[in-house]
Amino acid sequence: MRATMIHAPRDIRFETDVPDPVVSRPTDAIVRVTTACVCGSDLWPYRGENPTTEPHTIGHECIGFVEAVGSEVSTVKPGDFVIVPFDHCDNTCAHCRAGMQSACVNVGMTVSGQGELAKVNQADGSLVKVPGVGAAGPDAALVPSLMALSDVMPTGWHAAVAAGVREGGTAVVVGDGAVGLCGVIAASQMGAEKVVLMSRHESRQKLGTAFGATHLVAARGEEGEAAVMEITGGVGADAVLECVGTGQAMTTAFNVARPGSRVGFVGVPHGAEPPMRTMFSKNVGLAGGMAPVREYLPHLLDLVLAGTIDPGQVFDLRLPVEQVAEAYAAMDERRAIKTLLDVS
Amino acid sequence: MRATMIHAPRDIRFETDVPDPVVSRPTDAIVRVTTACVCGSDLWPYRGENPTTEPHTIGHECIGFVEAVGSEVSTVKPGDFVIVPFDHCDNTCAHCRAGMQSACVNVGMTVSGQGELAKVNQADGSLVKVPGVGAAGPDAALVPSLMALSDVMPTGWHAAVAAGVREGGTAVVVGDGAVGLCGVIAASQMGAEKVVLMSRHESRQKLGTAFGATHLVAARGEEGEAAVMEITGGVGADAVLECVGTGQAMTTAFNVARPGSRVGFVGVPHGAEPPMRTMFSKNVGLAGGMAPVREYLPHLLDLVLAGTIDPGQVFDLRLPVEQVAEAYAAMDERRAIKTLLDVS
Repeated sequence: MRATMIHAPRDIRFETDVPDPVVSRPTDAIVRVTTACVCGSDLWPYRGENPTTEPHTIGHECIGFVEAVGSEVSTVKPGDFVIVPFDHCDNTCAHCRAGMQSACVNVGMTVSGQGELAKVNQADGSLVKVPGVGAAGPDAALVPSLMALSDVMPTGWHAAVAAGVREGGTAVVVGDGAVGLCGVIAASQMGAEKVVLMSRHESRQKLGTAFGATHLVAARGEEGEAAVMEITGGVGADAVLECVGTGQAMTTAFNVARPGSRVGFVGVPHGAEPPMRTMFSKNVGLAGGMAPVREYLPHLLDLVLAGTIDPGQVFDLRLPVEQVAEAYAAMDERRAIKTLLDVS
Repeated sequence: MRATMIHAPRDIRFETDVPDPVVSRPTDAIVRVTTACVCGSDLWPYRGENPTTEPHTIGHECIGFVEAVGSEVSTVKPGDFVIVPFDHCDNTCAHCRAGMQSACVNVGMTVSGQGELAKVNQADGSLVKVPGVGAAGPDAALVPSLMALSDVMPTGWHAAVAAGVREGGTAVVVGDGAVGLCGVIAASQMGAEKVVLMSRHESRQKLGTAFGATHLVAARGEEGEAAVMEITGGVGADAVLECVGTGQAMTTAFNVARPGSRVGFVGVPHGAEPPMRTMFSKNVGLAGGMAPVREYLPHLLDLVLAGTIDPGQVFDLRLPVEQVAEAYAAMDERRAIKTLLDVS
């Protein structure tokens, strides 16, 4: 197949002779990818923050048509158009039944999502069919939002769940990347009365407002924290979504959280240490991790199909997959919030 | 007054010429202490882990009779027998109204609790009168459990609240000190179906069982964690109360927590860093801090007066306050779980 490979930091190549993934277990499926995208976490190896010891396929967000299924797969069949959660799960184990599918005992990950074919472990437990889609694929206008359901929208949703966003409360979103913007959607959908987005980029502010942010704070550091405290009447936020993953963002998150609240985090930690003393003295908790995509997916798909949410707007650059190297560069240089890739 | 002073590590003295605390603000009260005790956190300066730069009174857990009140105090009067929460609060600010009185904007602390007189800021918001107590003081059999309501029982309760103990779930208590044992009471009262106490001391195991522990795990480290995993059917605990405060205890707590659960912590952090990667990969949160004693006190007092709980059993040594130095030594050397001091 044709697929994206990473060879070394900043060395992303779209190659034409990558071995096809195949059904090797009765619970597997192969998905023919129509649309993919680049994740913020793909930038860690791109930037060399995570090592790349040998060339391998990359990309864990995709949607497409089921191409083949193993003998035990019963809920999807070749030709179905599906959302592929980046983290695969059997959806039957104790962790899945408790809504924490990202800790499934049979957890798997998409590893060739930016290619023509992606292998899915535990197809029955993972894949969610989009109803009413024929061989021509979904309505073009829906594609970006369906694409967002593979990872970024459920991840923003998870940040809000982990932070304990509740109706009538105040939610602060630290970070205006695609996850943070989806966190705004989530907090708004969950009924937060005030949704504060910390963002200093005008285009992202606009999108945040369209997604439901009621307040924007452009300042960072102490000045930004003071602005949030003022918005919250000096009390602090009832829930804080930390959607950056750096130490500075973590510090800001705890400083604006009201005593007794929680900070939700969803980025793979890279050097950010929770401030234990502040946590103790303020009684502010920290919760989060890899999003259990499958848990949220049916509800989020309903919201997308009903036109209630439109997370696909986070894609402000769209390229043919052959230009995947530029897709990474644009995000790395912050020329794009998130890049959608047309694969087939 | 006569009161306990700390001069330096392991230098605890009961002195006879300590200045009396006085009402200096209209919201103050002075309490004549009848009973006090030594807290695990008193051992930090005793052991030199926290510096003592100059001699000062020590002790933050006490009960007794109101001796004097400021002009604005209206809910208690001289002669009332009261529980003194170690953390004082106005019980009217936004944090107090949200149940997080330990972050009150007017928070204060008892600082001469192991002495004859203790000053209480915000008397109206802090002190809880024990009903039906005459000048002779409370029923002798009740004294230890009333004493436990000043700090240790509400702190154990807070660990359970922070960990999210719920009816029918499994709670694991890491640590068999007085706080951990009170955490067992809390988890049991909150309806946990399995309450696992990690303890290797026979006397503490017995007390834990009397307090509601359904399972005891004597092993530590990996072996202990494996035992907990077996008790929880390989899934891990729905809630973990970390009642030690060391790095090893924190590691064990996260290792036995099921994905999606929370670790509750209530000890002042001393070098224990939460394992961010484990938190992320397992989606296990961390919450807790200084207990909002006043929030839980009315309910806990009801439980004590009804004979439903008897947290006073954590006191396995009782001494006249003049022997306070021995009270510290006994706890430091783990000859006593917790020492009660008769003051007047």
